[in-house]
Amino acid sequence: MSKQNLQLTPEGRLKHFLTIEGLNAEILTEILDTAETFESMPKGVNKYPVLMGKTVVNLFFENSTRTRSTFELAATRLSAEVLNMDIERSSTSKGESLLDTINNLEAMNVDMFVVRHDQSGAAHFIAQHTPPHISIINAGDGQHAHPTQAMLDMFTIRQHHKDFSTLKVAIVGDVLHSRVARSQIQALNMLGVKEIRVIAPKTLLPAQIESLGVKIYLDMTEGLDDIDIIMMLRLQKERMNSAFLASESEYYKCFGLTEERLSLAKKGALVMHPGPINRGLEIASAVADGEQSLILQQVHNGIAVRMAIMSMIIQPK
Amino acid sequence: MSKQNLQLTPEGRLKHFLTIEGLNAEILTEILDTAETFESMPKGVNKYPVLMGKTVVNLFFENSTRTRSTFELAATRLSAEVLNMDIERSSTSKGESLLDTINNLEAMNVDMFVVRHDQSGAAHFIAQHTPPHISIINAGDGQHAHPTQAMLDMFTIRQHHKDFSTLKVAIVGDVLHSRVARSQIQALNMLGVKEIRVIAPKTLLPAQIESLGVKIYLDMTEGLDDIDIIMMLRLQKERMNSAFLASESEYYKCFGLTEERLSLAKKGALVMHPGPINRGLEIASAVADGEQSLILQQVHNGIAVRMAIMSMIIQPK
Amino acid sequence: MSKQNLQLTPEGRLKHFLTIEGLNAEILTEILDTAETFESMPKGVNKYPVLMGKTVVNLFFENSTRTRSTFELAATRLSAEVLNMDIERSSTSKGESLLDTINNLEAMNVDMFVVRHDQSGAAHFIAQHTPPHISIINAGDGQHAHPTQAMLDMFTIRQHHKDFSTLKVAIVGDVLHSRVARSQIQALNMLGVKEIRVIAPKTLLPAQIESLGVKIYLDMTEGLDDIDIIMMLRLQKERMNSAFLASESEYYKCFGLTEERLSLAKKGALVMHPGPINRGLEIASAVADGEQSLILQQVHNGIAVRMAIMSMIIQPK
Repeated sequence: MSKQNLQLTPEGRLKHFLTIEGLNAEILTEILDTAETFESMPKGVNKYPVLMGKTVVNLFFENSTRTRSTFELAATRLSAEVLNMDIERSSTSKGESLLDTINNLEAMNVDMFVVRHDQSGAAHFIAQHTPPHISIINAGDGQHAHPTQAMLDMFTIRQHHKDFSTLKVAIVGDVLHSRVARSQIQALNMLGVKEIRVIAPKTLLPAQIESLGVKIYLDMTEGLDDIDIIMMLRLQKERMNSAFLASESEYYKCFGLTEERLSLAKKGALVMHPGPINRGLEIASAVADGEQSLILQQVHNGIAVRMAIMSMIIQPK
Repeated sequence: MSKQNLQLTPEGRLKHFLTIEGLNAEILTEILDTAETFESMPKGVNKYPVLMGKTVVNLFFENSTRTRSTFELAATRLSAEVLNMDIERSSTSKGESLLDTINNLEAMNVDMFVVRHDQSGAAHFIAQHTPPHISIINAGDGQHAHPTQAMLDMFTIRQHHKDFSTLKVAIVGDVLHSRVARSQIQALNMLGVKEIRVIAPKTLLPAQIESLGVKIYLDMTEGLDDIDIIMMLRLQKERMNSAFLASESEYYKCFGLTEERLSLAKKGALVMHPGPINRGLEIASAVADGEQSLILQQVHNGIAVRMAIMSMIIQPK
Repeated sequence: MSKQNLQLTPEGRLKHFLTIEGLNAEILTEILDTAETFESMPKGVNKYPVLMGKTVVNLFFENSTRTRSTFELAATRLSAEVLNMDIERSSTSKGESLLDTINNLEAMNVDMFVVRHDQSGAAHFIAQHTPPHISIINAGDGQHAHPTQAMLDMFTIRQHHKDFSTLKVAIVGDVLHSRVARSQIQALNMLGVKEIRVIAPKTLLPAQIESLGVKIYLDMTEGLDDIDIIMMLRLQKERMNSAFLASESEYYKCFGLTEERLSLAKKGALVMHPGPINRGLEIASAVADGEQSLILQQVHNGIAVRMAIMSMIIQPK
């Protein structure tokens, strides 16, 4: 079954949320609209009965402060029971297969899995093998996709620019290894931005990235010209001293987002980053903490966006 | 004090749940009947006020996906507050004794401990040293007992065979190191099955196992003949290449449950396994995932059975 | 900003709870009085709506059975959502700074952080850098302070002695490395006890400890004479075989609290210890488990005292 069909019901509603690929602008816009209702609820109200009686399992095979916590808070604020599975301590350390672990958890009458895994395709694989009453949300799989991150980025952009069609967006950094970049490019294209650029050294660009509908720049000065939104990527320090990169200082000199570089973009251009940031490596502290930075707003928006996706899955219209 | 007296009130009601030993068919049947009421509740109802205001501590000194999760879900669905104690991160790593840890937790006004420990007798030891208002449930202690697993197995059997007295049951595998097997044999005998066989290589049979009321078979062909229920045991891979076993392939050749072997039992014989399963070691995937397998049903039933035990302890009739 | 101002609102109400220093007898007494109302609630009532809709993050960078559990129970019993941050598994292992972790958590709309950290001043540092709607409770920072422990000690003392002004208190053991001792001395002085003594070998006494308003004793016989309350400190075994201490047996011989030593204090003198205790190192089992020991009562009281502090912070009068 194709991914598109897998994550939509026959009526075209969300069943799983695995990747932006195969969705459409209407669904993405509905996610953003739904998130807005959660974001704008009256102060003091922070619990909704949407997932009352449902059990959400946070199945994290990889570390993450903000993603796990935002999913836990999102599910709790929708009144779900949340079961955090600490995979190091679980039966998988006894050699049980991923599928057997999932099957066992399913047998406990749970309703939704939020899965983070270091293997590309893990969430998709699980979704293919679960019975119809269970939904899977991909919280990041290998270098493949991180679609909830992309949606909270779109939500954050829309808080500042109502009209995507006028926007020029630059994605900067280690595109090669970034699941975030893939999902961002798909979402930005689907929502109809004017132009997407990727700016990176050649060694950090995937082959045939142009086929995704982006323009390649190997240079920040040229790449940032006339840009509305700069989406920085996290640089994995473990890539340093490898074939990919010369050195930290060299990288920062060429691709780090400093205040000077930021001034090359359109006046008031907005700066985003999925976190955690490496200060002084891919971004200067003055930019990360500056007025044009939306970084903490992104984290904040993560809860409303994840609530929106969970509630659309559980309550298909 | 004997174990029997320890886990029952003077009126013969459940106070702790440490071992099947010393209980009686009436109590076991009441557990099964109570679990049935939780199992058959109307869809959408999944929370009961039985443990409202009570605090249950999951005290796990050993890894377990399914056991810890089912206890957590069971307690949550009975409206308890659940405190998961991650023992690696706790004060016991500072050298505090088990008893001091327990005493400290008790001082926090908790009501029930679910204990898993690699030492046989740990749950019993704790129950001997806790004040009267606290109850202990044994979630597996060393090679001694795993009574809630045995009860969910009995529940799963009863879903298919109303009358235990006609059943011939075979327990297959590493009986020597299995806390599950001990509890299963006691429960099956107490509920009056017709015959219990254990099938294993000599090196994996405890001395004087016959005294528990079982027949010994060293051979699958003979042992499976006319059997209604096949209860497979998990083989600890760390026993391989030891004095106990020749090799994985040798073991599978002699004692693995393949489709051919399964056909030696009674037509439609049911297959059970406490999990996690070792595919291709003690059981073939075709059997584990086949029509006669109850393995995932066992996991599913674990929640209702544990809810039943917890509620009988908290609300003695 | 001074610590005093930092943890109080302009009206003098609790905003953070970082250290006893800079508070006053009126605030401490209000904490004790509030804790008493939680302690004496009718049986069966164990949940209060005080923190309904609030999110409390347990941010523990160090192990602790009892402190983390009591904070989790306290927050839960005040109806808060509790998010336990397991720091080993979090993004800080990717090299993210403490402040970035905190900023990210804040962005998720949380209301209170309970922080334990091995660096002195960590809670204070965080409080200086959080926006006004967030409160910090110090659950132990390095060798600096452990103010909630000190307050539960004060509460436990007051259950037995209404009038602090008549009491002679001895603090015994590794004062040099103890955050508990610092907070205890400040609280005891603020509540006006008659006399505070510290009893320790010279190598475990901080320089100029007298300036805190205590008398120094290097000898148990002299130091315990006429004492009402003996507050033992935990000895870190890792200090042994160092420059600080000769040997375990030597330490126990000179400073261990045995029954004989206890009899040197005032008749009926009470024994306290913040736990976890080292039996046979700083305290004899007969004393720890004896009639004059308040050790488990201290743990028990920890919940009510922490509920009191949390509710005073959230609901300033």
